[in-house]
Amino acid sequence: MYASNLYAPTLREVPAEAEIPSHQLMLRAGFIRKAAGGVYTYLPLAWRTLRKIEQIIREEMDAAGGQEIAMPIMQPSELWKESGRWEVFGDEMFKVNDRHGREFCLGPTHEEIITDLVRNEIRSYKQLPVLLYQIQNKYRDEIRPRFGLMRGREFIMKDLYSFDKDESGLDISYQKMYDAYTNIFNRCGLVFRPVEADGGAIGGSNTHEFTALAQTGESEIAVCTKCDYAANNEKAELALIEAPAETELALEKVATPDTKTIEAVIEYLNLPIEKSIKAVAFEDEHDRLICAFVRGDHEVNEVKLQNAVEAVSLRMADENVITAAGGVAGFMSPIGLDRKKAVVVVDQSVMAMKNACCGANEADKHYINANPQRDFGEAIVKDIRLIAAGDPCPHCGAPVEITRGIEIGQVFKLGTKYSNAMHAGFLDENGREKPFVMGCYGIGVSRTMSAAIEQLHDENGIIWPKAIAPYEVAIVPINAKDEAQMELAETIYQALKNAHVDVLLDDRKERAGVKFKDADLIGYPVRITIGPKAINEDNIETKVRKTGEIFNFTKENYLVKVQELLQDL
Amino acid sequence: MYASNLYAPTLREVPAEAEIPSHQLMLRAGFIRKAAGGVYTYLPLAWRTLRKIEQIIREEMDAAGGQEIAMPIMQPSELWKESGRWEVFGDEMFKVNDRHGREFCLGPTHEEIITDLVRNEIRSYKQLPVLLYQIQNKYRDEIRPRFGLMRGREFIMKDLYSFDKDESGLDISYQKMYDAYTNIFNRCGLVFRPVEADGGAIGGSNTHEFTALAQTGESEIAVCTKCDYAANNEKAELALIEAPAETELALEKVATPDTKTIEAVIEYLNLPIEKSIKAVAFEDEHDRLICAFVRGDHEVNEVKLQNAVEAVSLRMADENVITAAGGVAGFMSPIGLDRKKAVVVVDQSVMAMKNACCGANEADKHYINANPQRDFGEAIVKDIRLIAAGDPCPHCGAPVEITRGIEIGQVFKLGTKYSNAMHAGFLDENGREKPFVMGCYGIGVSRTMSAAIEQLHDENGIIWPKAIAPYEVAIVPINAKDEAQMELAETIYQALKNAHVDVLLDDRKERAGVKFKDADLIGYPVRITIGPKAINEDNIETKVRKTGEIFNFTKENYLVKVQELLQDL
Repeated sequence: MYASNLYAPTLREVPAEAEIPSHQLMLRAGFIRKAAGGVYTYLPLAWRTLRKIEQIIREEMDAAGGQEIAMPIMQPSELWKESGRWEVFGDEMFKVNDRHGREFCLGPTHEEIITDLVRNEIRSYKQLPVLLYQIQNKYRDEIRPRFGLMRGREFIMKDLYSFDKDESGLDISYQKMYDAYTNIFNRCGLVFRPVEADGGAIGGSNTHEFTALAQTGESEIAVCTKCDYAANNEKAELALIEAPAETELALEKVATPDTKTIEAVIEYLNLPIEKSIKAVAFEDEHDRLICAFVRGDHEVNEVKLQNAVEAVSLRMADENVITAAGGVAGFMSPIGLDRKKAVVVVDQSVMAMKNACCGANEADKHYINANPQRDFGEAIVKDIRLIAAGDPCPHCGAPVEITRGIEIGQVFKLGTKYSNAMHAGFLDENGREKPFVMGCYGIGVSRTMSAAIEQLHDENGIIWPKAIAPYEVAIVPINAKDEAQMELAETIYQALKNAHVDVLLDDRKERAGVKFKDADLIGYPVRITIGPKAINEDNIETKVRKTGEIFNFTKENYLVKVQELLQDL
Repeated sequence: MYASNLYAPTLREVPAEAEIPSHQLMLRAGFIRKAAGGVYTYLPLAWRTLRKIEQIIREEMDAAGGQEIAMPIMQPSELWKESGRWEVFGDEMFKVNDRHGREFCLGPTHEEIITDLVRNEIRSYKQLPVLLYQIQNKYRDEIRPRFGLMRGREFIMKDLYSFDKDESGLDISYQKMYDAYTNIFNRCGLVFRPVEADGGAIGGSNTHEFTALAQTGESEIAVCTKCDYAANNEKAELALIEAPAETELALEKVATPDTKTIEAVIEYLNLPIEKSIKAVAFEDEHDRLICAFVRGDHEVNEVKLQNAVEAVSLRMADENVITAAGGVAGFMSPIGLDRKKAVVVVDQSVMAMKNACCGANEADKHYINANPQRDFGEAIVKDIRLIAAGDPCPHCGAPVEITRGIEIGQVFKLGTKYSNAMHAGFLDENGREKPFVMGCYGIGVSRTMSAAIEQLHDENGIIWPKAIAPYEVAIVPINAKDEAQMELAETIYQALKNAHVDVLLDDRKERAGVKFKDADLIGYPVRITIGPKAINEDNIETKVRKTGEIFNFTKENYLVKVQELLQDL
């Protein structure tokens, strides 16, 4: 490719809305342009990178036994009503009516379509397993699309669905995908961790998120400092703490004027925070009042809480609802709450506390010497808190660290959730009807491109991993009007092209400084400079974008040397 | 690929709704499955063929200077309102509201998006021409989706847009695309004609349709029997006829009881049909009454009529509206029609008639000896009739034939329609603001696959052109339980694969008859049979699907011979 023909309009100024480096750099370097909130056009450079990522995915999916298909983006509502998800997805799903008034959605995911497809075709266990995938636009009407391609409303996903005859078959399919994902993200040059995660709205009992480590990521993950445990902090489990060998004292109500926060209470009572109990009240989608209690220094994990009470969504509770249940906002405890009007959920570590302080359900009053086992009455006891740095790893007990990342892939065991709901089954070895045991496996293709930029860039621009760079090598003649320079540049360009190097020649009649800046901004892994030194001294200066290293090659050895350089990148 | 792993469920019975061979065969051979009316899932075999077609398109677009991008499917309404097409597309456009009530459509085409993209980036004539394309799902809410992928509501298109600084630049871009399309459809193995066509709703003054010849096609085209003129029959022009040297007689009103059709009138009056004038009345989108008159043996061409009166759509006129304009349905002529209430359009060949018969705008009455030049009064005179077999070619005068075809591609000169409407311009050599001169160029990718099947199939199934066959060669061991057969089949499979032949091994434990039938149905260009003859007599039977020819190769020569065979296909 000649840069003079390349449609890659670079920008000097970045639109203010671009908050993170990948968004800023893809706008500046002419990779993407916004068409609407969360909806983008991919320009030639971005499209080249995306197609390289897609090809890597395709090769690994095929190697793992996947077959590529293409399902419709427009999906009839009937299938979603059959699975029960038409309402569940709510406003996040784009809905369309056709001219006859028939309802469709723009596919946010394809479990329904694929289950319908397979249930009409596969009748025997002999035909299993089946692994089908596609790479396609997906649609989610995010409340607040942001961060460029990171959280878009139209985005590219690879989704594979596996159908097995039993759980052990699913285990094999799951492991195949887990391994394929590891290969894919390694080949893309990303630093990532597969982390245990929560099933969420799609359902599924066992799932890993593949998370690219990056400080700008929206996921918080807990990583063990000793073993290989890593989990999304929504999921990360906490071990039971043993109760201290302390004598239980008598419950006592004390006045605590103007102490609506935990910090105020412990200061007033001069207690360590580990002796205090914090309350947070929610309402769920059925308007149930859910009162959660964790230790004063802990935070409620809403995902765990939601799972504990089998709720689909939680919102902060209205004060009137708390009052109606006998609670007093700011001074709430399980003691005295009307269990007919409030579901009480107590974190397991609270149950190990002795002689603690908690609200008295009376304004400006707290209890001291509360002993949850003795005093709290009817409650759901579960692990409902967020893991924090220093908490013990649930596998080995060593302290965990909390780090941030970008979810770029997820593997899910769906089990029979969809095959049961949609009556999708086959005949087993004994001629008995069985539901398919399913898995689903997604990769955010456009998000993977963003994640690569978040991981590797500097103040001058993007630094592409070689495998997914739009071009591997850029040749920059210093003076495009100098015939000798242009002739040598062209010779090198053709030689590299013939050696199957993905190369670009910047033949634009711009100043050298502009071309160097653009090369750094776009982030080609290797840049070859053709100036007077190359002509007069046979010095073909070759720079590695990532390290800044400069190599001086010659007309005789550059072809071998540049290829060696690329191999090592 | 091993057939035992291939997801290609074949059907014995074809759903009744499949009316044409491509639809029937793609269902039977396991290429596609319907998800909703006009919305399909592409299974692995179809997807392989589609990807081969896409790759051919991509190579030719790149060779012609095109750059691949990907624009959004979800398009904000603002741009369509700017171009004035939000209302024009009407019910054919799928519309979506997001959670904030903002309007979008699912792109039926991308002129607005690309014009918006380029107007924000290209400022100078030095940056032109620019040719950008994409391959993507498109959406049109057809009233009656049918014929499988031929007329779908979600379908795959390649669309390229060219931006030039002037008309002569556009001429070059247009010719590049015209040539690239010729290459593409030749490489795909199709029999096609580029035909002159009408601009239609997208606009544009100069356009060709690439039409695959097939009796099941929805397009009628007129093809000269002598020169290379070919045109869509909506477009095909007709030369002026000279008026006969006949004396004009006096207009006379005669009784013609019960003669509401032309056939009845000419029989009753014992006149040749060439002496009669036929009337057809329409209303347009502004409820204007449009009365069209053609010779009794001719048909009204609605597209030409629409262009003649600058209407966007026509419907049959209501009888009351005709009456209100002084007309009598069944007995209508221009004579006596109220020109304030009716637009009269007379075909140019009618104006060359003398002493003709036409309605008298009175029940059961006709005029004879009507002389349009003398008697018809105010009228728009234009070529508004459909060409018919035997009509003279507008280029050379030789008779034309009427044949049918499938529109698989179209090249359009848009000119400045969109750049003017959307204020998209650049500065020319003299620093003056100029609008981009645009072209657009589409290929129906999924429709091209259908067209290939319509052109080439037999009672046993599809016959794929080699370049777009899902696999080029199928190896069929007669007995999958016979170790020697399977071993030889595997050896041949690996050898062909290593020689970059796209090959499938049918290792299924089915009867040979079933496998042969499936091979014919799916339509692999070459089938290699491995049975006892291959083992015992070194006879590697190789059959060409298209011709039925059988070649007997040996273990020593098959590798060379099969590749030679493929080269000649």
